[in-house]
Amino acid sequence: MINLVIDMMGGDNGFKATSEAVKQFLKENDDAVLTLVGNKKNIDEFNGYKNTRLVYSETLLSMDVDPIKALKDDKSSLMVAIKELLNNNFDGIISAGSTGALLTAAIFKVKRIEGIKRPGLITSFPTLLGDKKTVVIDLGANLVNTSEELVQFAKLGKIYYSLVYKVENPSIYQLNNGTEEEKGRDINKEAFQILKNDDSLNFGGNIEARDVLKGTADVVVTDGFSGNIFLKATEGGVKAMSTLLKEAFMKNLGTKICYLLLRKQIKEMKNKMDYKSVGGAMLLGVNKIVVKAHGSSDAKAFLSALNLSKKLAKDNIVEKIKGEIK
Amino acid sequence: MINLVIDMMGGDNGFKATSEAVKQFLKENDDAVLTLVGNKKNIDEFNGYKNTRLVYSETLLSMDVDPIKALKDDKSSLMVAIKELLNNNFDGIISAGSTGALLTAAIFKVKRIEGIKRPGLITSFPTLLGDKKTVVIDLGANLVNTSEELVQFAKLGKIYYSLVYKVENPSIYQLNNGTEEEKGRDINKEAFQILKNDDSLNFGGNIEARDVLKGTADVVVTDGFSGNIFLKATEGGVKAMSTLLKEAFMKNLGTKICYLLLRKQIKEMKNKMDYKSVGGAMLLGVNKIVVKAHGSSDAKAFLSALNLSKKLAKDNIVEKIKGEIK
Repeated sequence: MINLVIDMMGGDNGFKATSEAVKQFLKENDDAVLTLVGNKKNIDEFNGYKNTRLVYSETLLSMDVDPIKALKDDKSSLMVAIKELLNNNFDGIISAGSTGALLTAAIFKVKRIEGIKRPGLITSFPTLLGDKKTVVIDLGANLVNTSEELVQFAKLGKIYYSLVYKVENPSIYQLNNGTEEEKGRDINKEAFQILKNDDSLNFGGNIEARDVLKGTADVVVTDGFSGNIFLKATEGGVKAMSTLLKEAFMKNLGTKICYLLLRKQIKEMKNKMDYKSVGGAMLLGVNKIVVKAHGSSDAKAFLSALNLSKKLAKDNIVEKIKGEIK
Repeated sequence: MINLVIDMMGGDNGFKATSEAVKQFLKENDDAVLTLVGNKKNIDEFNGYKNTRLVYSETLLSMDVDPIKALKDDKSSLMVAIKELLNNNFDGIISAGSTGALLTAAIFKVKRIEGIKRPGLITSFPTLLGDKKTVVIDLGANLVNTSEELVQFAKLGKIYYSLVYKVENPSIYQLNNGTEEEKGRDINKEAFQILKNDDSLNFGGNIEARDVLKGTADVVVTDGFSGNIFLKATEGGVKAMSTLLKEAFMKNLGTKICYLLLRKQIKEMKNKMDYKSVGGAMLLGVNKIVVKAHGSSDAKAFLSALNLSKKLAKDNIVEKIKGEIK
């Protein structure tokens, strides 16, 4: 059995989103036990459900809590969940709450795998190549990274991509301000040389931010600050276009009729560019599976984070990373 | 009279785009003299045109030329143009050629204004607030910046925004991985404190990459590497949505008819998100006006770069920066 701990209270939509997702997950899976952590008055709803354990917490961390302060609030759903994870040696934890608090708790409490310099936050991006996904690591678990850390992100990304997308030797690219070998800051130039000379990696070179969604790369490595800018700027570009599209359709009766005709395609398009549908982001390099569902997760998004976590637990990703990084 | 030097050969579309733009510019303006630099067989077409000077160059720098090598190719259209600019003490130069070569030539030959630590590349972004633009500096003239340099970018951005958009005390934001005061790398935290305590600046705090296109900020400051990632990731997000939109319209006869109905709105939408229409990027902080038109500039984009350059020359932007930075 896979054992996962769920922070039921985190996220903009709180218990409403997580409870619906958990119910659906339990319907579809009978090989996982979920430890549900949340306020008594909420989670008692799950009393009598099969394959669940209920653990009560008292407080809820706000989405913009100071991560270091969060560590001390040991009655919060997140910190109780972390304790459950560690005391019972369970497989993983999923939360839609504050990213900073989850990452800080994971790094300080769950702790890094031996040999890992810095854990990295990874997620899948949609691409223009049909169902093909591109993963990017690190999306913001770090602020500043060394070239050695970038190389380690490449190795972590390779393991993740192989397991999730069944690609044996995924292509690795470095996010940079140009494709030429000599482009970028010192860390990028150094990382390029190490990646190029590592025969175990299928290194494709540098990639520019505008080309990531084209789907050329399987894995893109970046320092955490740039990765965070990349993630949010891409989101901003996509959202701006969605907003303008909506305005265009509301112009007159003819365009409104078109909206009805195109509704299905537009929905497909939105789903395609919706990184929430891919299951959240995982912190790679700590001793457990730590999955951050998007803060604004609805039930569907949270469910996909649960499914991703179970899959990664079944695939033994943490043990695979331990085997690889020595 | 304003005196501008034009690299007629640079850019993916070369002389075809620049010549058409120059003809249009000459039709619309009689208060500027253009020094056209290019191959004899091309630019002789302008023989007899009013308000033009023709200067022949022999070679053309490729778009991915090594910038340091480019400096030595003194028969290239770019380097001849730079020489004309300096020898005649003209107002500015416009090129659609290699960004790296133009910036390097500008920094080494045109040179920094006294007191400027690092020049910064600035451009205007469209926003969801109607015609409102947001400018971002630095978009990649630098790789690594100090907090003092970020603060100087804020001052340069303020001067630029005031002149171009007639806003007296534009709002300044710092691109960061979160909005809270304590977010970001050390340079971001330091810059935040300096910006906050500078009474001459209308500092609004940090801004996340996903919010820039919403149009809250007038000026956004960032280190050059992050700015470059921001620019290209935004472009990637917008382009991915455009591509998917096109596919959606090609699905069947009904959706194709819709395309005909929505064509005007879609064109408006594309124009709105087309940063090429805003006139290129300017390197702020050197002793002349240096405008980089987008590499894939068509005549319209190059014309808008010419208009921007003339406007900035009329507004005496270089002198204003000299007055401000001491």
